[in-house]
Amino acid sequence: MEREPKQDRSRATRLRLLEATIDCLAAQGWGATTVSVVAEQAGVSRGAAQHHFPTREDLITAALDFMFDGRMAEIREEAVGLPIGPGRTEAVVSRMVEYFTGPLFRAALQVWTAAAADDALRQRVVPLEAKFGRVAHRVTVELLGADDADPVAHRLVQATLDLARGLGLADVLTDDSLRRSHIIRQWSATLDAALGQPAVG
Amino acid sequence: MEREPKQDRSRATRLRLLEATIDCLAAQGWGATTVSVVAEQAGVSRGAAQHHFPTREDLITAALDFMFDGRMAEIREEAVGLPIGPGRTEAVVSRMVEYFTGPLFRAALQVWTAAAADDALRQRVVPLEAKFGRVAHRVTVELLGADDADPVAHRLVQATLDLARGLGLADVLTDDSLRRSHIIRQWSATLDAALGQPAVG
Repeated sequence: MEREPKQDRSRATRLRLLEATIDCLAAQGWGATTVSVVAEQAGVSRGAAQHHFPTREDLITAALDFMFDGRMAEIREEAVGLPIGPGRTEAVVSRMVEYFTGPLFRAALQVWTAAAADDALRQRVVPLEAKFGRVAHRVTVELLGADDADPVAHRLVQATLDLARGLGLADVLTDDSLRRSHIIRQWSATLDAALGQPAVG
Repeated sequence: MEREPKQDRSRATRLRLLEATIDCLAAQGWGATTVSVVAEQAGVSRGAAQHHFPTREDLITAALDFMFDGRMAEIREEAVGLPIGPGRTEAVVSRMVEYFTGPLFRAALQVWTAAAADDALRQRVVPLEAKFGRVAHRVTVELLGADDADPVAHRLVQATLDLARGLGLADVLTDDSLRRSHIIRQWSATLDAALGQPAVG
């Protein structure tokens, strides 16, 4: 009878650590995000934090992975309310771009950038990046109702996610939301028109 | 009669420091890029380096600014050899994407990412980012022969640069060149078709 609450507490501690990791990375950057700092921000003892995540790399990759899964599940759930027909493409593109302008993207940017100059971290991060790319692509195809077997649609969905990543990066230092809304609107119209085009190359 | 060679030497020292800064940022990251490390890599004494660039921020912003101007001048010069007519859009888009996948972009990414968690650095970097965005836009408009007064063309050129930035980010941890070449080809075809579209919104 005692095990259940203990497991619940353990799960709640883990979740607090994962959330604090994303917040810490996004606001304070890679250099400041150590297990001790995150534990303190999460209100968890350093020992308990290290029981869950022995190294900083364990903590950070677990946080990105867990939060990404949660974000994609949210996007899928919210999609139930998206318009069918005209306006759907823009609504879907907006959702995906939102993901790339939130704290999770900012946190991932800190880790990707650190990994660019750190081979051991790169080894940990590359499979995660591959998974994120694959899942974001699948979710976008699904929400747009695009035919991923069609090479034009496949590449334009990829381009849409590359655009979203670029828009995310443009928002890191200044609020780029007004310019971004125009780009999203234009891109969505162009995407709608292009999804009828014949394949290139 | 003595001043000329002295000025030349000073200019050469400055240039070596700026080039070493970009290489150091791109390969070793923000944390490792200090005036001492760069001076050593450039084969310049620490005193001489600090004479030219009193602080790390002076050195890094000067390096990004100088190298960006050089890169844009190169892109403009190379454009003389670009095809006129079909194929030009793809050639121009490729050139701009190349800029976002080179060492200069990797160096800038290190600085932008550090600035996201450092307000003093952010103050220095924001005007630089604004200038880079403005100039890259103007060069792209010029090379594409696009009508920037047309809102569709204006937004699609911006989207092209956002896409290029996203493709640059996707290349930081792994070689993404094969996927990228398909995206560039598809987007160039879509861009050509879209530049004939009526304005949206």
